[in-house]
Amino acid sequence: ISVWLPGGEEMEKERETLQTWKERVGQELDRVVAFWMAHSHDQEYGGFFTCLGRDGHVYDDLKYVWLQGRQVWMYCHLYRKFERFRRPELLDSAKAGGEFLLRYARVAPPGKKCAFVLTRDGRPIKVQRTIFSECFYTMAMNELWRVTGEAHYQREAVEMLDQIVHWVRKDPSGLGRPRLPGTPDSESMAVPMMLLNLVEQLREADDEMAGKYAELGDWCAHKILQHVQRDGQAVLENVSGDGKELSGCLGRHQNPGHALEAGWFLLRHAIRKGDPELRVHVIDKFLLLPFRSGWDPDHGGLFYFQDADGLCPTQLEWAMKLWWPHSEAMIALLMGYSDNGDPALLHLFYQVAEYTFRQFRDPEYGEWFGYLNREGMVALTIKGGPFKGCFHVPRCLAMCEEMLGALLSRLAPVRDPGAGSPSADPAR
Amino acid sequence: ISVWLPGGEEMEKERETLQTWKERVGQELDRVVAFWMAHSHDQEYGGFFTCLGRDGHVYDDLKYVWLQGRQVWMYCHLYRKFERFRRPELLDSAKAGGEFLLRYARVAPPGKKCAFVLTRDGRPIKVQRTIFSECFYTMAMNELWRVTGEAHYQREAVEMLDQIVHWVRKDPSGLGRPRLPGTPDSESMAVPMMLLNLVEQLREADDEMAGKYAELGDWCAHKILQHVQRDGQAVLENVSGDGKELSGCLGRHQNPGHALEAGWFLLRHAIRKGDPELRVHVIDKFLLLPFRSGWDPDHGGLFYFQDADGLCPTQLEWAMKLWWPHSEAMIALLMGYSDNGDPALLHLFYQVAEYTFRQFRDPEYGEWFGYLNREGMVALTIKGGPFKGCFHVPRCLAMCEEMLGALLSRLAPVRDPGAGSPSADPAR
Repeated sequence: ISVWLPGGEEMEKERETLQTWKERVGQELDRVVAFWMAHSHDQEYGGFFTCLGRDGHVYDDLKYVWLQGRQVWMYCHLYRKFERFRRPELLDSAKAGGEFLLRYARVAPPGKKCAFVLTRDGRPIKVQRTIFSECFYTMAMNELWRVTGEAHYQREAVEMLDQIVHWVRKDPSGLGRPRLPGTPDSESMAVPMMLLNLVEQLREADDEMAGKYAELGDWCAHKILQHVQRDGQAVLENVSGDGKELSGCLGRHQNPGHALEAGWFLLRHAIRKGDPELRVHVIDKFLLLPFRSGWDPDHGGLFYFQDADGLCPTQLEWAMKLWWPHSEAMIALLMGYSDNGDPALLHLFYQVAEYTFRQFRDPEYGEWFGYLNREGMVALTIKGGPFKGCFHVPRCLAMCEEMLGALLSRLAPVRDPGAGSPSADPAR
Repeated sequence: ISVWLPGGEEMEKERETLQTWKERVGQELDRVVAFWMAHSHDQEYGGFFTCLGRDGHVYDDLKYVWLQGRQVWMYCHLYRKFERFRRPELLDSAKAGGEFLLRYARVAPPGKKCAFVLTRDGRPIKVQRTIFSECFYTMAMNELWRVTGEAHYQREAVEMLDQIVHWVRKDPSGLGRPRLPGTPDSESMAVPMMLLNLVEQLREADDEMAGKYAELGDWCAHKILQHVQRDGQAVLENVSGDGKELSGCLGRHQNPGHALEAGWFLLRHAIRKGDPELRVHVIDKFLLLPFRSGWDPDHGGLFYFQDADGLCPTQLEWAMKLWWPHSEAMIALLMGYSDNGDPALLHLFYQVAEYTFRQFRDPEYGEWFGYLNREGMVALTIKGGPFKGCFHVPRCLAMCEEMLGALLSRLAPVRDPGAGSPSADPAR
């Protein structure tokens, strides 16, 4: 580890830059949390408004279940991990959101299938034939259990995760997706990614869960790694069940921000496992490769979608710059640097962070814009919507603040640059 | 009618401009048809490739049922209406496309539900829980009957339309859309629009069908007119079943190009009915109103989506300029001018046509780009894809060529500008 520690003056400069970013990130986290606390709480029905305009006004009162679960998780996580967020109003709002989910998320209780979007008062409007509403429900419940100690939340989390695993690995018929004769045998990287994230969530400081889901975690990592294709030259979003490239646009589809997110999920997994080969592989294939092919050389920022053959994607928004690929890239690159100390990764982190703070951040009303055009100008002025809530931005800021703190504490006590210091745990 | 005919020198100038556009439009139609004939025919399985890159190369071989039906319809229509397109290769390709649809479009024959997308060899991949695949199937079959005289095509068309009407007006359960407790009582303008277009298609020179579907046509017009809301100040895409504005983004959603397309469907209907009040109303509310609110004052072109309160839409592509709203606007504005002779409509037609030919047309490889960014630059270089095939562009060009010809013939014999001439039938 010690070999990469910079010496003397250089180290002092690095420390200053890290310290500056730690402060920027921490202050931004405060502002972002303040935005959601000021504008998103539904005092009447519980849960959160997420359709918020630039200044925070509610432009629609629909309740998207992904975003309800994510905000509950985020509030609890901040409450649990940061002294300065141990505030009763965060916990109370998280609990009200949790009660809203418990009461309304499932379409036909005791069945576990959750709606995608609900009316303000909790009546289901639409159901997706996927597992994602259920995954965010699980994250919320597990984190609620961690902050409250109330066992019924954890029971909800485990039962839901077991149902999800059943749908994914045993029998998907409960999801309601028809399997037609021409349907390709396609597997999306999103599914094992989400599951790996849930395994990580449930196993934290919990030996029972760590044991119960150890095999699932390995299975997820294996499945995600199958998306590295073309002799290691491309991460593809969809591959066949036996890990081959699929034909057509479906097979060539790439999402660089998603690959980077998978990267830090995998890296965290590999660090926990103590698997040095996997760590190297993940940094190479899921951090550096998607960053290099996904970064727009003309205008900066990560493209939303790409085609592995360099053809034009068919998605209208392919060249837009979305907030979440950039927040995931910040996490991934800083975690990669924390792991292997390669200064190239730190410089990429700075590159993404500079772009992100400059282009997405709204100094006037707080929070970040979500959707920029290819050139980096704001295309949608909304701060929240059907897919943007209180999640990617504060998760990124919270994790970066922690990782920057760990890096600084690793540098701080070292007067003799040759002496090294214990490695920070980037997966904390 | 005669009052609006310009006099002397002015008339000569107008004739020249009309003549120039008629030639431009006719030549462009030839080039566009040549593009699809050169690149889209699947000689092996029948039907059409529609995923075509800028130069016409096939980048995916999926068969989208909407686009199969539309191309069959377009080829037959050109064959039937234009001497210069009465070419056996058009008819043969249309028939091969028709056979492909007859054999593969329906997911579970004899059930009438059609797939949304098929593999190249006709196996269903996805089914939409809407009526649109079936509508384009119907258009294709009716037009095949018109050019071949083979009765089984017409039988297919009528049976399918009756099934669609049953789903829309009697019992939607066959479409498979779950009705959940929070689902709003929302009606999309697209449904009566499509049905009105089908009524017009089937009743042409066919008294039996004209009688059979007369009430349906009136019902469609009534339903479309319910989308004029806010004291006549806005056309909204979705309204409640009893014709009221819905809450939230769903209720405020606008699509100016779609309103303009509804405009020419309605105007054609009103002209056939001989309903002068409806003609005036339609030109005002479905042509001028959506054009004025939908045209981008900064960069030109019609926005794809808008919010009736002027808020930011949540669709990422809202500010993009798509080809089809512009081709529909060209048809609508020229039909409006042909109907009422208001020079303001002709000037708007020229404005849209100039923008469209300048920004969408590809002089190098033929056909039009489909997707421009807000500023009018090409955002996607594809010429065809899951939603763009051989339809809106050639339909627009064919209809404009006919309408321009009718306008010219109305002007041509008139030496004394006060004498007038018989009104051209813009709905032909």
